[in-house]
Amino acid sequence: MKEHLNLLDIDLEVTRDKIKQFIKGYTIGLNRSGVLLGLSGGVDSSLVLKLCCEAVGKDSTIAVILPERDSDSKNIKDAVRWARELGVKYIYKKLTPALWLIGIYRLFPPAFLVPKILISRYIAREKEAISKRVGEDIFISTLKGTTDSQLNKAFAYYKVKHRLRGTILFYYADLYNYLCVGCLNKSEWLTGFFVKYGDSVADIMPIISLYKTQVVKLAEYVGLPDYILMKKPSPDLIPGIFDEDVLGMSYQKLDLILHGIERNLSVEEISKITNASAKEIDRIKEIVEKSEYQRSNFAIY
Amino acid sequence: MKEHLNLLDIDLEVTRDKIKQFIKGYTIGLNRSGVLLGLSGGVDSSLVLKLCCEAVGKDSTIAVILPERDSDSKNIKDAVRWARELGVKYIYKKLTPALWLIGIYRLFPPAFLVPKILISRYIAREKEAISKRVGEDIFISTLKGTTDSQLNKAFAYYKVKHRLRGTILFYYADLYNYLCVGCLNKSEWLTGFFVKYGDSVADIMPIISLYKTQVVKLAEYVGLPDYILMKKPSPDLIPGIFDEDVLGMSYQKLDLILHGIERNLSVEEISKITNASAKEIDRIKEIVEKSEYQRSNFAIY
Repeated sequence: MKEHLNLLDIDLEVTRDKIKQFIKGYTIGLNRSGVLLGLSGGVDSSLVLKLCCEAVGKDSTIAVILPERDSDSKNIKDAVRWARELGVKYIYKKLTPALWLIGIYRLFPPAFLVPKILISRYIAREKEAISKRVGEDIFISTLKGTTDSQLNKAFAYYKVKHRLRGTILFYYADLYNYLCVGCLNKSEWLTGFFVKYGDSVADIMPIISLYKTQVVKLAEYVGLPDYILMKKPSPDLIPGIFDEDVLGMSYQKLDLILHGIERNLSVEEISKITNASAKEIDRIKEIVEKSEYQRSNFAIY
Repeated sequence: MKEHLNLLDIDLEVTRDKIKQFIKGYTIGLNRSGVLLGLSGGVDSSLVLKLCCEAVGKDSTIAVILPERDSDSKNIKDAVRWARELGVKYIYKKLTPALWLIGIYRLFPPAFLVPKILISRYIAREKEAISKRVGEDIFISTLKGTTDSQLNKAFAYYKVKHRLRGTILFYYADLYNYLCVGCLNKSEWLTGFFVKYGDSVADIMPIISLYKTQVVKLAEYVGLPDYILMKKPSPDLIPGIFDEDVLGMSYQKLDLILHGIERNLSVEEISKITNASAKEIDRIKEIVEKSEYQRSNFAIY
């Protein structure tokens, strides 16, 4: 597989420039006074923050950090540290009280009394039990919808967090007349690995044309620090849930498969490039197909 | 003008049936256990609630009533009354505490200490002052963006309410595995008279193909009560702000103009049908054009 990763190579300097022009162009075109984005401490938003600073200047950029009860404390610290290193203003606002009011923490009440490591273990066991019960992997259930009430509780529990973030990001965007910049990448977009009307609400999406592996390459290229680059990617919505566990494979493998699907290669050809089994490739094909709902807007009569 | 209103005539029975099939089809197609919607007490959501009951049954329909500090108390009472009359379950949740946490009421602090009538008068004066300052009508400023900080404060103040509503509607939709049904109509859609990522988030939009005047006709036809039909349409986000004041004309006139634009009629022809001046027609054309941002999703690089 590794020898085929160059299939995903892009001109990093050209890409960086294009994205900067894109951000600047929309800021001017929409008559905005600056740009803002939600900063999680992960690679994607940390990269976009850096590119925003380069595009419109650090004095016209705001990072909005919106942690809640379950957020990984390392991510929050990293977000604050990165915003400070770049010298951008940041807004820090805990979502926990508002999420209590909405009622989500009552759905899984024991969680806040016990250490995170036990929570992670509990969630891993729950995940397995649910997966057995619904008879398919949970990620495909998130895309297809399910009548399993425990699973629906979990969806309600994590999705509302990103939706509330979107609501608050646009609140500040409206207040300051700033452009709201989103951070979805192409791997997330094609697999539906995001919250519809949650992290998918934004004025512009500057890295949505880049696969995750390309995002990481660009992040290294523009000089993101190791404390951000060296983390296991996670949506940071439920403790112990990481991207590659949900997706069922590494991003390198996933991106090569997605790239193969994009070029209309056969399962055999994709298998040769990626070392993935036909079953793995078919699963990703199913995910791309079933995630159409995630990418679409409301249906109209 | 009145003699041309038949241009907007539709077969009400056929429309009612099609919408019911549409709602039912998506509920089944997306594997949902029922449908829910936000009920404001206005004509649009009250009509959609009735059609949902007819489509999937009242036991599979939930009305979600989400008032906040500035909501018109008559609208809230009407919403509760209508849900009860239809015999549907309803969820009643005040948004005021969560909106306090977000910080919006601090933007306009005196508002909650004084009677609504004084607030309305204050807002009318403010509106005029802002309109003079920005040199154009406020509604066009909402579409184009503005650097007027008082106006941006107002945008932030009212838009967050519908966005928080969308967040909470989807929270319940996820929790119960219900379809989230939106209530935008064609007059709102074409003029951008809605909150982007606010009342425009939904799984389906069953009345978006109907102009407001058609919505009202259909609402009368299916038997909506007078206490809902006989109200002056209002977004109910800021006291004293009514649809037709913002839009600058009656819905009857607006819809005939929009219909004329849709059929590519000349300004002269539209003027003949609607008795509107060329200036009024050009303003609506500008609104339709400038509201493209409202209807579009995020821009991609």
